[in-house]
Amino acid sequence: MYNFASDYLEGAHPQVMEALNKTNFIQTVGYGEDQYCQKAKDKIKAILENENVDIHFLAGGTQTNMIMISSALKDYQAVIAVDSGHINVHETGAVEFTGHKILTKPHQDGKMIPEMIDEIMREHPDEHMVQPKMVYISQTTEYGTYYTLEELKAIYECCQKNNLYLFIDGARLGSALVLKDAPTLQEMALYSDVFYIGGTKMGALFGECLVIINDELKTDFRYHIKQKGAMLAKGRLLGVQFNALFENDLYLEIGKHENECADILRKGFKDKGYKMYIESPSNQIFPIVDQQTLEKINKNYITTYMFKIDDQHTCIRLVTSWATSKEICEQFIEEL
Amino acid sequence: MYNFASDYLEGAHPQVMEALNKTNFIQTVGYGEDQYCQKAKDKIKAILENENVDIHFLAGGTQTNMIMISSALKDYQAVIAVDSGHINVHETGAVEFTGHKILTKPHQDGKMIPEMIDEIMREHPDEHMVQPKMVYISQTTEYGTYYTLEELKAIYECCQKNNLYLFIDGARLGSALVLKDAPTLQEMALYSDVFYIGGTKMGALFGECLVIINDELKTDFRYHIKQKGAMLAKGRLLGVQFNALFENDLYLEIGKHENECADILRKGFKDKGYKMYIESPSNQIFPIVDQQTLEKINKNYITTYMFKIDDQHTCIRLVTSWATSKEICEQFIEEL
Amino acid sequence: MYNFASDYLEGAHPQVMEALNKTNFIQTVGYGEDQYCQKAKDKIKAILENENVDIHFLAGGTQTNMIMISSALKDYQAVIAVDSGHINVHETGAVEFTGHKILTKPHQDGKMIPEMIDEIMREHPDEHMVQPKMVYISQTTEYGTYYTLEELKAIYECCQKNNLYLFIDGARLGSALVLKDAPTLQEMALYSDVFYIGGTKMGALFGECLVIINDELKTDFRYHIKQKGAMLAKGRLLGVQFNALFENDLYLEIGKHENECADILRKGFKDKGYKMYIESPSNQIFPIVDQQTLEKINKNYITTYMFKIDDQHTCIRLVTSWATSKEICEQFIEEL
Amino acid sequence: MYNFASDYLEGAHPQVMEALNKTNFIQTVGYGEDQYCQKAKDKIKAILENENVDIHFLAGGTQTNMIMISSALKDYQAVIAVDSGHINVHETGAVEFTGHKILTKPHQDGKMIPEMIDEIMREHPDEHMVQPKMVYISQTTEYGTYYTLEELKAIYECCQKNNLYLFIDGARLGSALVLKDAPTLQEMALYSDVFYIGGTKMGALFGECLVIINDELKTDFRYHIKQKGAMLAKGRLLGVQFNALFENDLYLEIGKHENECADILRKGFKDKGYKMYIESPSNQIFPIVDQQTLEKINKNYITTYMFKIDDQHTCIRLVTSWATSKEICEQFIEEL
Repeated sequence: MYNFASDYLEGAHPQVMEALNKTNFIQTVGYGEDQYCQKAKDKIKAILENENVDIHFLAGGTQTNMIMISSALKDYQAVIAVDSGHINVHETGAVEFTGHKILTKPHQDGKMIPEMIDEIMREHPDEHMVQPKMVYISQTTEYGTYYTLEELKAIYECCQKNNLYLFIDGARLGSALVLKDAPTLQEMALYSDVFYIGGTKMGALFGECLVIINDELKTDFRYHIKQKGAMLAKGRLLGVQFNALFENDLYLEIGKHENECADILRKGFKDKGYKMYIESPSNQIFPIVDQQTLEKINKNYITTYMFKIDDQHTCIRLVTSWATSKEICEQFIEEL
Repeated sequence: MYNFASDYLEGAHPQVMEALNKTNFIQTVGYGEDQYCQKAKDKIKAILENENVDIHFLAGGTQTNMIMISSALKDYQAVIAVDSGHINVHETGAVEFTGHKILTKPHQDGKMIPEMIDEIMREHPDEHMVQPKMVYISQTTEYGTYYTLEELKAIYECCQKNNLYLFIDGARLGSALVLKDAPTLQEMALYSDVFYIGGTKMGALFGECLVIINDELKTDFRYHIKQKGAMLAKGRLLGVQFNALFENDLYLEIGKHENECADILRKGFKDKGYKMYIESPSNQIFPIVDQQTLEKINKNYITTYMFKIDDQHTCIRLVTSWATSKEICEQFIEEL
Repeated sequence: MYNFASDYLEGAHPQVMEALNKTNFIQTVGYGEDQYCQKAKDKIKAILENENVDIHFLAGGTQTNMIMISSALKDYQAVIAVDSGHINVHETGAVEFTGHKILTKPHQDGKMIPEMIDEIMREHPDEHMVQPKMVYISQTTEYGTYYTLEELKAIYECCQKNNLYLFIDGARLGSALVLKDAPTLQEMALYSDVFYIGGTKMGALFGECLVIINDELKTDFRYHIKQKGAMLAKGRLLGVQFNALFENDLYLEIGKHENECADILRKGFKDKGYKMYIESPSNQIFPIVDQQTLEKINKNYITTYMFKIDDQHTCIRLVTSWATSKEICEQFIEEL
Repeated sequence: MYNFASDYLEGAHPQVMEALNKTNFIQTVGYGEDQYCQKAKDKIKAILENENVDIHFLAGGTQTNMIMISSALKDYQAVIAVDSGHINVHETGAVEFTGHKILTKPHQDGKMIPEMIDEIMREHPDEHMVQPKMVYISQTTEYGTYYTLEELKAIYECCQKNNLYLFIDGARLGSALVLKDAPTLQEMALYSDVFYIGGTKMGALFGECLVIINDELKTDFRYHIKQKGAMLAKGRLLGVQFNALFENDLYLEIGKHENECADILRKGFKDKGYKMYIESPSNQIFPIVDQQTLEKINKNYITTYMFKIDDQHTCIRLVTSWATSKEICEQFIEEL
């Protein structure tokens, strides 16, 4: 059985493991104040061409979203997301646990558009309702789509106009960075208040790299990390991994590799006449398959069941990763 | 410079790293539902001689304390701890963040005694005050002391009598398990409602193993883990590590090694006429040193500053770990 | 100017004020443990023909909703409501502040139907999402509609089937109780787990009467009240007021009077050719008026602006109360 | 039986009730935006000789403390209080429910001194601990003592130096305002960041008047009130009551009357040879009585049991209020 269910099914990219092995016996101070974290931060700041950002490393995506959102909002403030947003559906109410409402509008191809934001602002005029203060989007989205630079700019301008922070969840950012017209890391730092560079789904054992651009969001951030149980004693582990991921463009290479693997699957499905539920150019694809095809796939492969399209058709999801080989993708299509 | 400041200054014990390397490319399902976690759970249940416990793996100590305590308590319930308890001092209010008061009494040699519990119960009779519902203790304590089996039994009986859960923080459990008259793992499962077997400070890269004995505390626990941002996508990492730690008694061996290293330091300080702030038999020692000695130590070694005893004397802390060598301990004493 | 904007624009019904004046100098114990609260509880239990319910008096609706919902749910559990539900829109995220997500579906005439509940249950199968545990409905609804006994039974059965609590917000319950085929108070206690009998909008100075039927929801409820800042030192004030409201069916009389006043307005609007945005038989009406009419109304009356229907038409809301006179309603229609 | 247990055992001062009766049928807008609230605010600002303060009316003390403290603190920040502080003991963990730790030191005659604050600051240097940000004191204290102007100034200066807000709980402020060398209302507004003028225990049916002096604490405060379930629909009730309390110095008169009643009791106890547990000059007294005396008192009077002094002696509390007559105090002493 080969598993296409997600991009976190193996350990870490070999270069990440090698870095962990090489540094294993070296003593460092704890809690992320070590030289590896510092070096990784410096490296990423250089890539962003921005010395003024604050960088923090965290263990996972839900944790990063919860801490970033709760630290940015006052008690009565809310975050805006599309209904399919990860924070709205797949985080067991982590944001609400910290006290904040998520205001949603139905997604458009997995994405937010400025009109949704404006409408939510109109709907929340006074103290009898929550006060929207942050917009949360994902790059790539839950449906494998992505924001172009122009789209990101439009959302950021809308946020600026409405006095809202823009936060970008980059759990699968590597897959987006190499897509046509997508914002680069430098551009993301220009058109958002905070974003994170995902590690867990991009070849790390675990770990996300949070980049805070807006000064208002920087104050005492380590207190938030510690309080929410997210400050690793051996914080160095995150520094070591992100150093490896940003050595010689490994991060972008992984993104490119994932997308190329997905391209094989995408093209294969289409060539054989299957439709996609949504046109996604990244490392997640959403083919619609009939019952017979599904059964055939299930013999040798694991995929994610999304939902029934009708009695005879099902939307499934396949995800490629740094560990996916092009051979297995070709073999999958062959067997289809 | 050699660093005695804590037991989390290196990566992982070589056998743990080896296990991570060996399993790196194997695909597993995510979120801790893989075969490695299952195997580790089975192994630990066998050691506990108890099939009915629920076992969950988490990334760090503050996280484990926060999730366990908040999941056990209703809104208006409180947890009892000694004033020096880790949850009361060094977790940035994580327990309070989840809504719960910590009720404290001054520690006795770092420990709780039943009389403290009874007194707190008397002080909280009605709905105008919080309702105590859990007792939190650490094995070993913040001061390197530990509870004997008899002491643990006495506290557990006091908890039973007062309808309180007993939760044992075992961040440094390995060091306690090999001490005279200390409860074994099986005995801990008999005389507590829940405890955790620490990994981070015992040779893992990161990770704690929570053992829930009382059925009332088991319900939907994975919801709590996920909601608090603590469910690792690659949950396997924790299973793999705890498998390694409990292979051929490695966990106890690490505890034994730590204590033996500490014994060298302990004996050395005493032989040279230094007093201890507190008599601790485990891997943490608290010598009182004069200013001159402190300066000498600081040239080649890092230790933890605890507090001033008087104008001329300071209490410091030294901690040994799986990575400490007996040679460095001997060298330290020699140089003293 | 006469104000039809809501039913909380005056003080209290004269019989309520009289009761407060009469008891003003009598000493009682505090915090709702006095004889007036006891008498009011006994009286309401007799009306419910149920000695086993727990009754608590609280100061306001948002407070009652927040405390009841948060006390019923575990951290990871959610409450289901229609999108127009008061807790979802007009309580500034009070439920989310206590840590819980509100799961919504678009309302049907302001109401919930069992199919919505079933769908939400299907959408929330595991620990990666919140766990629905309670359904919240209002009698009457935000749109002045109400649940018949049959409709309530259907929702309650759906809740039972799905292991959900049913909570009914009765801020304007008096207006519903006197409507055709509406459940009586006794029937509400049979087909819900908890509901509240509104006082603030029904002639009290302030106050709501919470009736807990399900034993699971009763434990230590006074701790929740106190912790959320809702336990009045002079708790007697609530007992005194509810005694007055349930003396000689005053509560039902107020409901009847409100509805009759609203009938005058309803009939008047329709007779003059105005459409209603929604057909509501209770003390809230939602006429659609053209710009010219709106301006005329605004000269002598205050109403609530709801939303624009189109460029020329606006939906407004008029609410009648114990203090509304039939004369002013007739005069309003005359001037229309 | 006459009850000396507290100052909330009757309804409201006759002038307060009269004001409520007189305004009962007048229509006003809801939620505290009416003319009565405005007038009361203007009146109090005039007394404070400060137009720049923000004034909000709330229903009760625990509610006021919870909302004020939680609105002022960020997630990881803590409030400092003496161990006997109302928020620390008698509010069922309301502050902790909102996520914040209370840091305490043992009280001195019920009071805080600057040294306690400085010590707590030294104990909390970094992000592994909570960050102290507010000091909470009560005027008068739980033990009936009070801060002189000089003492208040010293605490305020210590707060300023340590970048802490100072919040004064004035549940029984009237009793303090008329004591020798106590700060006036104007002086309280000069030497604190926020305080509240208690109504519930000073002759109102219910209600506290929060005065926010520091601009940093003013932002969007009505959102906090609403979200915590504390915004009364008929907010006018609070405005009407505080108008009455501040008409012709009624508030100070009540304080004076209370203290004079307490003086009779105080002098009586002392004349008959009883000791006080603590020397309190306000409307709360804490005599130590032997078993026989206690039994005699208990025949005709209710007092509050505080704690056992020894086998033969008990500390009790007597409280006087606007409703206490000097006659009953004299009669009590006579019967002693």
